[in-house]
Amino acid sequence: MKEKLYAAIDLGGTKIYAVLGDGKGSILAGELVATKAAEGPPAVMEQLAQSLSVLMAKTSRRLSDLQAVGICAAGFFDWQKKLLVHSPNMAGWDNVPLEQDLSERLGLPVLAENDANAAALGEARCGAGRGVSDQVFVTVSTGIGAGLVLGGQIYRGAAGFAGEFGHMVVKTDGPVCGCGRRGCLETVASGTAIARMAAAAVAQAGKETMLSRIAEENGGRLTAPHVFAAAELGDYVAGEILAEASFYLGVGLVNIVNLLNPQVLVLGGGVAAAGEKFLQPLREAIALKAIPPAAESCSLRGAELGMAAGVTGMLCLLAEL
Amino acid sequence: MKEKLYAAIDLGGTKIYAVLGDGKGSILAGELVATKAAEGPPAVMEQLAQSLSVLMAKTSRRLSDLQAVGICAAGFFDWQKKLLVHSPNMAGWDNVPLEQDLSERLGLPVLAENDANAAALGEARCGAGRGVSDQVFVTVSTGIGAGLVLGGQIYRGAAGFAGEFGHMVVKTDGPVCGCGRRGCLETVASGTAIARMAAAAVAQAGKETMLSRIAEENGGRLTAPHVFAAAELGDYVAGEILAEASFYLGVGLVNIVNLLNPQVLVLGGGVAAAGEKFLQPLREAIALKAIPPAAESCSLRGAELGMAAGVTGMLCLLAEL
Repeated sequence: MKEKLYAAIDLGGTKIYAVLGDGKGSILAGELVATKAAEGPPAVMEQLAQSLSVLMAKTSRRLSDLQAVGICAAGFFDWQKKLLVHSPNMAGWDNVPLEQDLSERLGLPVLAENDANAAALGEARCGAGRGVSDQVFVTVSTGIGAGLVLGGQIYRGAAGFAGEFGHMVVKTDGPVCGCGRRGCLETVASGTAIARMAAAAVAQAGKETMLSRIAEENGGRLTAPHVFAAAELGDYVAGEILAEASFYLGVGLVNIVNLLNPQVLVLGGGVAAAGEKFLQPLREAIALKAIPPAAESCSLRGAELGMAAGVTGMLCLLAEL
Repeated sequence: MKEKLYAAIDLGGTKIYAVLGDGKGSILAGELVATKAAEGPPAVMEQLAQSLSVLMAKTSRRLSDLQAVGICAAGFFDWQKKLLVHSPNMAGWDNVPLEQDLSERLGLPVLAENDANAAALGEARCGAGRGVSDQVFVTVSTGIGAGLVLGGQIYRGAAGFAGEFGHMVVKTDGPVCGCGRRGCLETVASGTAIARMAAAAVAQAGKETMLSRIAEENGGRLTAPHVFAAAELGDYVAGEILAEASFYLGVGLVNIVNLLNPQVLVLGGGVAAAGEKFLQPLREAIALKAIPPAAESCSLRGAELGMAAGVTGMLCLLAEL
């Protein structure tokens, strides 16, 4: 029997990653382009179709060989109305009927999913959570999000908004968040928060830190990777900033372990890419601070699939329909 | 066809509630006795068997008419080893093979479950969460706990320890908890926390509050119901204490709404029994502070089944096996 063919697209604010693959999540060919986010939805829809055409040409296939197309994107989906309600990374993507538009353009069934949910399923089927039934995938980069795979399936909640881990309040007297509240995890542990704390440390008179020199060399701009690099070189202030971010991320993860007792917690995203140095203190926080039997039954792992997590999840999701 | 018969027991630290019922959760007869917790597991096991005998006599039935018996209890269950690992409310209940012991004694299949999970299922099938698939049941009394019904089924997590909501950290610089950490929800929003704050207010020189008189009248002892009563009579200090507990409980509930997007949040337990005055500020917290679409799709309701929630859940669970 011939293996069924699917296409999957990860539509991000900065890049579009499209693949051709099978129902087991194996990728046969891929195509990566920069998202023309500033040009608005019609231009991006054109890019999506174009990416699939390139994939077909690369593999000498036709669109009609595909069973279906999956697309994942950052943003709020309304599952009843089948709309991408809002995308935080792309201007103008409000109430877009993503499935319908793309399906009409391609003449194929299309399934849309939130990108964190898709990545969570990818890691649960083919990555760090392979073989487990309860896995929480946490992504820490500019923002913080989560995708839940519970009982072996994506858990979306009543209206599809489960997994808003970045807005877990862990510091009630902390900084004001974009959502209007104080002390959301995103305000104290995201890449954005790390960069903000670094800028504040540099601005503070009397703090000696190599972050000052790095800021000067970068036109005053500091990013989370700068802070990681400075800490790596032994900079005390950078180390303190990362310790604070890690402390609050640890609180958030412990709260997840106590509430959901997952078998595996998978950490992905740009900040998590800092690797074992980033994971080890979080493992210690869980071991020390979560309810012992929940901590003992939970393994914290780095994501394995990188930028392929979302498309891998979409391939699996299509095959399981 | 004759309706199948089941027995269900809620084994609490202070009382044992046993019922005879059907697979739809309807209770045909009940028996309530005080738990001889101080006399240890063998005496309590004898009480459980005795309660069932009384139920049989009341209804002119025999144990052999029963399909199975369900029992729920507070505590940590090890699902692999089928042990009640530890019960916080009853001394000496460590590593008790509850299902096996009771099954051998009764000559019937026995199923054991954590009491919060059982109560959550009871409310989801026959109570405040009737007809919804994703419901979180939160119980606020001496301690704080939760039971999750996700996708229509009890969600237990990897090792059966999901729902430890009382140990969600909401105030990292807060009081030390029994679990060893600081600022667990239980330390700032439980009945115990409310009583502790009341005692501290009375001890503080210069605070004028009717709690001082209530304490004197009760041999120095203050409880959460005292604080509710004083607040009801307009006592400012009591009102402030409840406002603080409610604030942190609101933070915890908002965190659940953002993470799990349940259709219904059910509040039960002694403290929650304070009713609408207790629920309304929490509804406002969710409306104001949770991610809007998650808040809009979630309804906060008081528990409907009271002390019957656990046994109702066990009746349903047995019928669904």
